[in-house]
Amino acid sequence: MTLLAERTTATAADELEGADVGVLPVGSTEQHGPALALGMDHLAAEAFARSAIDREDSVVLPTIPVGVSAHHRQFDGTLYVSPETFERYVTETIASLAEHGVRKVVVVNGHGGNTGALRRAARTLRDDRTAFAPPWNWWDSVEDVADDLFDEAGGHADAMESSLLWHLHADLVDADELAAAEDGASDGWGESVHGAALGFDTIDFSESGAVGRPTQADPEKGAQVFEAARDQLHALLDWLADRPIDDCWPRDHE
Amino acid sequence: MTLLAERTTATAADELEGADVGVLPVGSTEQHGPALALGMDHLAAEAFARSAIDREDSVVLPTIPVGVSAHHRQFDGTLYVSPETFERYVTETIASLAEHGVRKVVVVNGHGGNTGALRRAARTLRDDRTAFAPPWNWWDSVEDVADDLFDEAGGHADAMESSLLWHLHADLVDADELAAAEDGASDGWGESVHGAALGFDTIDFSESGAVGRPTQADPEKGAQVFEAARDQLHALLDWLADRPIDDCWPRDHE
Amino acid sequence: MTLLAERTTATAADELEGADVGVLPVGSTEQHGPALALGMDHLAAEAFARSAIDREDSVVLPTIPVGVSAHHRQFDGTLYVSPETFERYVTETIASLAEHGVRKVVVVNGHGGNTGALRRAARTLRDDRTAFAPPWNWWDSVEDVADDLFDEAGGHADAMESSLLWHLHADLVDADELAAAEDGASDGWGESVHGAALGFDTIDFSESGAVGRPTQADPEKGAQVFEAARDQLHALLDWLADRPIDDCWPRDHE
Amino acid sequence: MTLLAERTTATAADELEGADVGVLPVGSTEQHGPALALGMDHLAAEAFARSAIDREDSVVLPTIPVGVSAHHRQFDGTLYVSPETFERYVTETIASLAEHGVRKVVVVNGHGGNTGALRRAARTLRDDRTAFAPPWNWWDSVEDVADDLFDEAGGHADAMESSLLWHLHADLVDADELAAAEDGASDGWGESVHGAALGFDTIDFSESGAVGRPTQADPEKGAQVFEAARDQLHALLDWLADRPIDDCWPRDHE
Amino acid sequence: MTLLAERTTATAADELEGADVGVLPVGSTEQHGPALALGMDHLAAEAFARSAIDREDSVVLPTIPVGVSAHHRQFDGTLYVSPETFERYVTETIASLAEHGVRKVVVVNGHGGNTGALRRAARTLRDDRTAFAPPWNWWDSVEDVADDLFDEAGGHADAMESSLLWHLHADLVDADELAAAEDGASDGWGESVHGAALGFDTIDFSESGAVGRPTQADPEKGAQVFEAARDQLHALLDWLADRPIDDCWPRDHE
Amino acid sequence: MTLLAERTTATAADELEGADVGVLPVGSTEQHGPALALGMDHLAAEAFARSAIDREDSVVLPTIPVGVSAHHRQFDGTLYVSPETFERYVTETIASLAEHGVRKVVVVNGHGGNTGALRRAARTLRDDRTAFAPPWNWWDSVEDVADDLFDEAGGHADAMESSLLWHLHADLVDADELAAAEDGASDGWGESVHGAALGFDTIDFSESGAVGRPTQADPEKGAQVFEAARDQLHALLDWLADRPIDDCWPRDHE
Repeated sequence: MTLLAERTTATAADELEGADVGVLPVGSTEQHGPALALGMDHLAAEAFARSAIDREDSVVLPTIPVGVSAHHRQFDGTLYVSPETFERYVTETIASLAEHGVRKVVVVNGHGGNTGALRRAARTLRDDRTAFAPPWNWWDSVEDVADDLFDEAGGHADAMESSLLWHLHADLVDADELAAAEDGASDGWGESVHGAALGFDTIDFSESGAVGRPTQADPEKGAQVFEAARDQLHALLDWLADRPIDDCWPRDHE
Repeated sequence: MTLLAERTTATAADELEGADVGVLPVGSTEQHGPALALGMDHLAAEAFARSAIDREDSVVLPTIPVGVSAHHRQFDGTLYVSPETFERYVTETIASLAEHGVRKVVVVNGHGGNTGALRRAARTLRDDRTAFAPPWNWWDSVEDVADDLFDEAGGHADAMESSLLWHLHADLVDADELAAAEDGASDGWGESVHGAALGFDTIDFSESGAVGRPTQADPEKGAQVFEAARDQLHALLDWLADRPIDDCWPRDHE
Repeated sequence: MTLLAERTTATAADELEGADVGVLPVGSTEQHGPALALGMDHLAAEAFARSAIDREDSVVLPTIPVGVSAHHRQFDGTLYVSPETFERYVTETIASLAEHGVRKVVVVNGHGGNTGALRRAARTLRDDRTAFAPPWNWWDSVEDVADDLFDEAGGHADAMESSLLWHLHADLVDADELAAAEDGASDGWGESVHGAALGFDTIDFSESGAVGRPTQADPEKGAQVFEAARDQLHALLDWLADRPIDDCWPRDHE
Repeated sequence: MTLLAERTTATAADELEGADVGVLPVGSTEQHGPALALGMDHLAAEAFARSAIDREDSVVLPTIPVGVSAHHRQFDGTLYVSPETFERYVTETIASLAEHGVRKVVVVNGHGGNTGALRRAARTLRDDRTAFAPPWNWWDSVEDVADDLFDEAGGHADAMESSLLWHLHADLVDADELAAAEDGASDGWGESVHGAALGFDTIDFSESGAVGRPTQADPEKGAQVFEAARDQLHALLDWLADRPIDDCWPRDHE
Repeated sequence: MTLLAERTTATAADELEGADVGVLPVGSTEQHGPALALGMDHLAAEAFARSAIDREDSVVLPTIPVGVSAHHRQFDGTLYVSPETFERYVTETIASLAEHGVRKVVVVNGHGGNTGALRRAARTLRDDRTAFAPPWNWWDSVEDVADDLFDEAGGHADAMESSLLWHLHADLVDADELAAAEDGASDGWGESVHGAALGFDTIDFSESGAVGRPTQADPEKGAQVFEAARDQLHALLDWLADRPIDDCWPRDHE
Repeated sequence: MTLLAERTTATAADELEGADVGVLPVGSTEQHGPALALGMDHLAAEAFARSAIDREDSVVLPTIPVGVSAHHRQFDGTLYVSPETFERYVTETIASLAEHGVRKVVVVNGHGGNTGALRRAARTLRDDRTAFAPPWNWWDSVEDVADDLFDEAGGHADAMESSLLWHLHADLVDADELAAAEDGASDGWGESVHGAALGFDTIDFSESGAVGRPTQADPEKGAQVFEAARDQLHALLDWLADRPIDDCWPRDHE
């Protein structure tokens, strides 16, 4: 199917009837260090989601571009909404899709900071039996690939993200700045003090806004990451399309 | 300036310092009758907003694609969020931009149903002295042009909207369906019974989902509409860029 | 029926059983320029609503006197609540009436600023199948009469409102101040800049608080306006009393 | 001063400048047994509030007619809003008055069920230093008088309320029904089981909706109650008018 | 049954099946004058609740230790949450218990300031037919005993509370400070000015934070209070265990 | 210091003046498989928090016993509140402590499901400059110890939790059921399908409610875990006590 937004209501009717799964890309517009474009996360989510355009069993929704990014707010250009507002925006969008009969959805997520809100949205929709809408974080699906390709404990604007964007939109990577990104990067996300996770804002632990080893980025590696994650997404869509909706709802205790 | 999302935090810093006005496109994904794509409203908003990319004094934000469209929900493919959620999503996005020093914003709106929420958002942001962010509805800026070009009391998926989309994205207009759109269209928005505005849902008064005379659509007219409205938007941006922020805040009574 | 508030629970029981339609007057207490009393809007709504006291098919509720008037707050004496609070107060009042079996209501509204909140209240009540409660703005029902009687593009404390109050409560019009009202009035509501509706507060565009041509006011014209609008209201009550409740709920798409 | 709603913004300006105290009548529209009108509580509040019209130091606001009455909902004609909605409506109305410089307010309350919400409203307004707005329940001010006049442990539609309404609005008391009211009345409010206050709804413990001894009602006694309570109210207004606003705010601990 | 928290899910299953009534202790952590520990109210509630551990028909929940105490905030050590937050915390805890089949609950309350929120919680749970959960204030159950033992019009950190804590936890009473507590105590709760209840904060009317005659405290009297109130609680549990749940829900009007 | 709740307001005043850090234990009451008591998480938090009683620089608050546990609700005895309610209860409790001058707090957390809400609470308190209140999850502080002692990828009612409870409260471990717990346990938390984290409810992936290898539990190991984590907590308290509050607030971007 094409993008839902490119259908008329007349042609959408047929497609929605046949669709088993909705695909909702969500991301953020936030700092990704000096080398990557602010749109990294929603552009990545959009690219993965649009890989499903040709699937007969899927319908691809518009991209939600601003997410839970207050922790990046000290860096120029970061936009953000509160976790509760983001959760509501996503929950209600999915609920409106469900009114048209598509009650299984994959939320293709490009931003780690969205995860908590997306989990709460998915729980609410499931508990109400409105929709089954688990979030899918692309990086969680390719941990093995990442271990092979990169020598970093990354997390933000790292070699993996940089490679992916380089592959998807080479013009949105300022390769000359990857060294600066790495110079100011932290080795890992946040800051742990005797077991307490501090690092509430990125600026607390990273000067450049990056976390990881951006200089290891390479568009070829980005292509490998993209393909691997895309394949995982399609496997997930296959799995979910086949899963009866009644198996998706909360179980009772016997 | 390019799109904000295509800037890195480093290059955004410079641009934001120079920017006088933010431009936030918002729309909807909702039925526009059998001839127009569901994305009509956010695509139109996006097109107008992106006409400002080359302005040095403006910064263009990502498009918010789902709006206040519950009244179209009976037609296939319509997505929607509640007025309050939409209001919050927009308010918080603008407030986050204001933290970077851009406190004057034009909200380029493609969907009439969003207007109430956008007015409330603008009022809140202004009363708090966070930002001055009036909504700009493209159709309100070209009433004279519309009167010249079209013989309709339109309002939704009408000849004016159809023409505009035809101009912007010819592939998203199913011209063969314009007649069907008009056959099932109402002559005006809603339904008035002895002064009471009924017509809470579009389906209450329109069979096709359209309101107006879609068969009068023509891509050339769409080009005229686009150019006229775009010129108005740029005049507004000029005006707002020059207006001191202190003149934007609420006045006291003398 | 008399006013609901003047019934005992015992006599209300009978009347409510026979009533087809509730009538809820709502208005505001806000500046209406130097010549008109602050209570203009709730007094007008009350007058129209009370014209239905003798109808067997209607029950008249108490008047809600404070509304959505923040935009008049810089003028002395204006009271206001937020749109959300007003919406909730009205919604819950109507829902409590519906528990007694009266599920069709006309909200007789005297203040334009209340309209958005009343539309949202009506939508919620209808979507929940609690009640069908459209707002009726008295001025919307007499546009033709207004065009005949007055030469103004009014909107607030204008000749039409002034005339109506003069007719209803001559002691609440300070006729000596009508000239001052007009001197400081704007010609139309708000301020449009290249298609953007500015004028968030009345003080942004009117020095006296009035909009229109108050000096054209005349109590005889007020009587004509009152009678014409009252007739429209009663026609609406007739229509709604006869309408089956099942025809009032949202339609499904076929 | 006259009622605020009967002033124009021009004449209100002078009066508000001179006013020391606002007077806001609030009540309910709810069952008061078979003999008393549903408006009892807001009519009583209104009568007390309007006794202050001639005071130079006071400004009388419009009456808020629907309150926290869900516990009477099983009796015909009862209207109600939630405690939170009522609290917000009152809080915001008072805050808007405070913008005009009147920051001391007596909330003249006619309904016991409103008290919790009014106390929370007063606390919020005081803690924010917006206004000092204690509720005044008329019956709390005349306990001694009540003990002298009536032999009852009343609480609702009892002899004291019946007498007061008989005095204020004789046409709104159905004296023939006082016996029926008493036959079905409970002796005291609610129901206590081993120290737990049950009786969540009036219908749980009273068949007629009344609590107390309505047959002891008498308009002369009503006049005595009215005068005694009115005198208390005016003494309170004197006291509050003289009290410096800085003495009204929360104290710090030394 | 032991405390619920000391059961495993396996042994809880059996006990919950047999349990008729839940017992939820709630209190506060707030100033109780110079002689009593801050935990007075939750410790008292806990002691009463735990007296039900051996009852086969009851299940005792964990103690909620922080309540509605903003009015004590000027005194050192007082903790508090807002009425709405407390109401929600209690409501949701009880609703989760009800999912396991225990739908009758006594909320054993140690703090007067919690009462309004607990009543609203109980009303909501009852109206939704989720649970019947009346609050039980221990002091309300022993008014006669208090009249016999103490010569005070107390209310806070008074002789009755002091005696009870002395009985329950002698180490948490600083008997040397009882005289100081009484020196700075008020004779009654709050402050009434011409019928208006002022005294929003305890510090408005009590220097020591106490209200009443703490020097009358005596651990033997505390034992009498405890035993009398405990007996009342158990009588209430007997009564509620036997009451059919269908008799607990709101009645309709006939 | 002793527990705050065991202090009077008089003695609390001195202690609070000297205190640098508040310690707030929070947990849950929820299923921990057939072998462990439902109170596991709040009892563990309480034990760690109370290890700080003798520190001069710390003040220990009461334990909040019910948390974010909806995902365990199908297992008998689980209590829960919503994430938002829990977040508010914790946020407001800490804010009330901050009014007494203690603005650095360690939230000692015993339940993983609380973490998201606690992070949001900490962020809000920090952004408002009310308090710096990071959560400390005891298990996060002893990952190395756990790796040495246990051969499991646990997460809930696993060998580590079982050992700890066995050490703290031997009577609350039903050692005979550890085998049953393990038989029905999953090997890891949740369920990952092609990168999507499913497993919204524990019952989706664990029959017994446990995750890990409970049969490896041993009270001696529990002692080691307790001591190691306690030492980490005290090191954190030392660090936070010394940290200037101004270093705790969000940084600006240079």
